[in-house]
Amino acid sequence: MQTPAFVPPTIGVFDSGFGGLTVLRALIARVPQARFSFIGDTARLPYGSKSRRTIARYAAQSARFLVEEQGAKYLVIACNTASALALDAIKDAVPSSVSVIGVISPGAEAARNASKTGDVLVIATDATVQSHAYAIACRAHGLRAFEKACPLLVPLVEEGWTDHPVTAEVIRIYFDELNADAAAQGLHPDTLVLGCTHYPLLRPIIERVAPANMRVIDSAESAADALLRQLRFDLGAPPPSTPSDPVLQFFATDSVEKFERLGSQFLGRPVGSVGLVDLGG
Amino acid sequence: MQTPAFVPPTIGVFDSGFGGLTVLRALIARVPQARFSFIGDTARLPYGSKSRRTIARYAAQSARFLVEEQGAKYLVIACNTASALALDAIKDAVPSSVSVIGVISPGAEAARNASKTGDVLVIATDATVQSHAYAIACRAHGLRAFEKACPLLVPLVEEGWTDHPVTAEVIRIYFDELNADAAAQGLHPDTLVLGCTHYPLLRPIIERVAPANMRVIDSAESAADALLRQLRFDLGAPPPSTPSDPVLQFFATDSVEKFERLGSQFLGRPVGSVGLVDLGG
Repeated sequence: MQTPAFVPPTIGVFDSGFGGLTVLRALIARVPQARFSFIGDTARLPYGSKSRRTIARYAAQSARFLVEEQGAKYLVIACNTASALALDAIKDAVPSSVSVIGVISPGAEAARNASKTGDVLVIATDATVQSHAYAIACRAHGLRAFEKACPLLVPLVEEGWTDHPVTAEVIRIYFDELNADAAAQGLHPDTLVLGCTHYPLLRPIIERVAPANMRVIDSAESAADALLRQLRFDLGAPPPSTPSDPVLQFFATDSVEKFERLGSQFLGRPVGSVGLVDLGG
Repeated sequence: MQTPAFVPPTIGVFDSGFGGLTVLRALIARVPQARFSFIGDTARLPYGSKSRRTIARYAAQSARFLVEEQGAKYLVIACNTASALALDAIKDAVPSSVSVIGVISPGAEAARNASKTGDVLVIATDATVQSHAYAIACRAHGLRAFEKACPLLVPLVEEGWTDHPVTAEVIRIYFDELNADAAAQGLHPDTLVLGCTHYPLLRPIIERVAPANMRVIDSAESAADALLRQLRFDLGAPPPSTPSDPVLQFFATDSVEKFERLGSQFLGRPVGSVGLVDLGG
């Protein structure tokens, strides 16, 4: 019996901006043969300071674009805030045949596999923290999570200060607060979840500043692992691992220039031209 | 002949967020009898990283709300980015009987009155700097302007680090770059324009870090002066300066909670309840 020919799936990847390109990068490494369509809702970023209602409306529009206009059969919500606040709204906005994968649940699962004490720290945007989505997902895996909003980290990454003394100092201050607050609650955290797609670019500094032996979980990598498991399940076999040049298409709702300029740092390869899409509003 | 009774005007004040409350504060100090209606387009902030086309569309929606639903006869665009990129779009969106005042031109005029060397520095958001609106307005007043984007300052203010060593260090770094670049172009600046409504909260640090004798211009104060001149012209007399409790109404397109929590720092008095407005999009 012959294995049926592998038909590369179309994978839609959505973020409020271009931070989600760190997730796309992890996806490409795992399924290089796929066709990827990425949209950044740059006209309305950042989602991190907006309400659930608004985020759900915006995210559903992008999800429909990826499914209806780009033919995506898989959707990866490469935005912690949208995963935290709008995953159900996104699932409701697309046909049930489309698999929708966020970054929160895979991140919590990876934390469970990494943590020995069962106590984890999560750093993220304001809205992600206020949703307590990571704490809830961690609790479902038997973990206790302590979450902290670090609103200066995204602007520092976007300023290009990914290896800068000011950034190291800001992270040190955030960690001092984080450790003091976690200790006051009797937690003994040994695992740190990077709950924002910008943070992988700060991983070297974070690992320098974090307490020794702290395991760092990048939810971008965890989400890509989750997609790979889903593909394997749907195909009945792992997708072929032959090296390939992925087919990549990029869209943004605004700020195409900034996307093109900063995107390559996140993607780890040049972002070609970015199409401008009007989702209304 | 009796002076006709003073009818307090309705003044609409618009910002992408709540930074424009520093402008409202300056307006209240000058025309305490007026009725003020303030809208912050918080669902779509920050404007600073968005394109002219998008900013113009958003700003026109808010301007129409203030005129059509709130009855504003005067509009103060308390947002440097919108003043820089969308002043004409806003004027086109409302009846010509409505006076529209931005922050850029008044800021440039105040700089002309302050500067002896004719060379001024302007710090602002990315989009304001890229528009070169201050440089153009300064040139119209016979000044040479050197503009610099300082994208970390708004997040630092919103983190509440208005008097923090990290903020002082960031401002020092920005000033070092600013002074070096201005000197390389042969400029001898003696005046600094705060080209963002968040920056007045950093004025004490900025004045500590800035070179001695640098005059600091707050464009919020300059815009309020411009409105007062317009009122005086329209009324044929200065509005009465009797102390009064202004009538204040606040609206936001999202994040009412954040507006209420942070707004009072900018306004210098408590912000009462904030109405949620849906402008679409």
